[in-house]
Amino acid sequence: MTITVVGIGLIGGSLALSLRKNGFGTNFIGVDNDEIHRSDAMWLGLVDEVLPFEDAVCKSDMVIISIPVNVIGKTLIQALDILDCHGNGKTVVVDMGSTKKGICSESENHPRRSQYVASHPIAGTEFSGPKAAVDNLFEGKKTIICDRERSSAYALNTVCQMYQSIGMDISYMSSDIHDRHIAFVSHISHISSFALGTTVLNIEKDEKSIFTMAGSGFSSTVRLAKSSPETWAPIFVQNADSILFALNNYIRQLEKFKLSLEKRDSEELKKLMKNANEIKRII
Amino acid sequence: MTITVVGIGLIGGSLALSLRKNGFGTNFIGVDNDEIHRSDAMWLGLVDEVLPFEDAVCKSDMVIISIPVNVIGKTLIQALDILDCHGNGKTVVVDMGSTKKGICSESENHPRRSQYVASHPIAGTEFSGPKAAVDNLFEGKKTIICDRERSSAYALNTVCQMYQSIGMDISYMSSDIHDRHIAFVSHISHISSFALGTTVLNIEKDEKSIFTMAGSGFSSTVRLAKSSPETWAPIFVQNADSILFALNNYIRQLEKFKLSLEKRDSEELKKLMKNANEIKRII
Repeated sequence: MTITVVGIGLIGGSLALSLRKNGFGTNFIGVDNDEIHRSDAMWLGLVDEVLPFEDAVCKSDMVIISIPVNVIGKTLIQALDILDCHGNGKTVVVDMGSTKKGICSESENHPRRSQYVASHPIAGTEFSGPKAAVDNLFEGKKTIICDRERSSAYALNTVCQMYQSIGMDISYMSSDIHDRHIAFVSHISHISSFALGTTVLNIEKDEKSIFTMAGSGFSSTVRLAKSSPETWAPIFVQNADSILFALNNYIRQLEKFKLSLEKRDSEELKKLMKNANEIKRII
Repeated sequence: MTITVVGIGLIGGSLALSLRKNGFGTNFIGVDNDEIHRSDAMWLGLVDEVLPFEDAVCKSDMVIISIPVNVIGKTLIQALDILDCHGNGKTVVVDMGSTKKGICSESENHPRRSQYVASHPIAGTEFSGPKAAVDNLFEGKKTIICDRERSSAYALNTVCQMYQSIGMDISYMSSDIHDRHIAFVSHISHISSFALGTTVLNIEKDEKSIFTMAGSGFSSTVRLAKSSPETWAPIFVQNADSILFALNNYIRQLEKFKLSLEKRDSEELKKLMKNANEIKRII
């Protein structure tokens, strides 16, 4: 199978590595706006060749779109528009975006909508670009396929086989529910972490040695603050409604801690923490 | 050396394991209010015997106090009061508390203050109790010694040797600076995590399958929400002023994200994240 990866960064590059290693794909074509990413992807062996978008799509059995979410919709439409040049009518397009509702809406009336599968592999690191690609990023992780009734059986089957080949556990849901839930279990974690990083960095201006004491707890909560602004700004904007709902809830919880702290109310603090402890059931 | 560990939980138990393994201590006595902890500590081989507080202190060359911070001060005074029964005047008392200013104030006028070393090993997990004890908890981590000028050369040297024997890197600072800084690099991380855990658990009541999508980012930011309320409520109360200062700054940063989200201002969001990205310099 010939696979085009549009956007050869952490996700696209890691996917190419994994799918080459397990033999799911035999020929990998890279498409990327960034010249350095293109040459890095070739040099690192993530792809066999680099081509312009149209040429790549025309030669492919599968097109993987792994670019920032604000440009996925447009690129997806462009890909669907030219799929026929491939001839067999069986080229499958799949995206990796962290938001799904906007992208699914943009493509919903396209005559070749059924050749597209909307997906979101829940995998990543705080790093980005082709050099961040690793071949075991997806193993044992979850992936979400949205609005599956809009995809053809062939397209859905092909994408499921791809995800299964790299050891991912597939769940199905509507793009609407996906976006509402992911705001709580991923997007808000990132904002929490970015805000925490900045809070401590700001204090460092007055308290030079503040990081002397940073331990594993700090690293754990602030790790996501290293994430790419180019990736995350479009995600936040696309999912702003759900994220604002989550963020308001989060700030409300912090205000409860604040109130209990102001009152030095040890029992109330314990109660708040005991509620949070219930997370042991999940992680 | 005979070592008494007052509070044989995650920290005290791990320390006993490490100090036995490397030969720093030869005889370990456990003191704990909790009967289950006492029998677990014996059963797990963390200590050789369990004794009442006074008997244990009288037999020891070193007393390690690893109990919740609200009871360290009182226990420390009680230990200093009876140290003489040991005879050689060289028993050293050290505490492991995550706050230092209050504890140092309580003991500052004690005639045997110099036999006490105020310390805080920056190590831990989200687990607690004797069963959570592991023998490599401290290796390669940082420890802080506060107000060292108040400790005798002998006491300081003994405690430093102990920390070095388990591979810890020692820093020195005043108890005042310790508490101000630790609010930012540890205490606020815990509150951020507890509040995040509760936020998502609350939503789960309406959105049953919300954790389907929880990935490594979520786990990372919410891990500390599993921490013990019994340990953390006293820490939060003892360091309330510094934590409130940090928490207000943190909420202010979150409000900035909120405002940019409300405006769907991608450029402003990128600017906020780029500032936070500077954390790469630290972790």
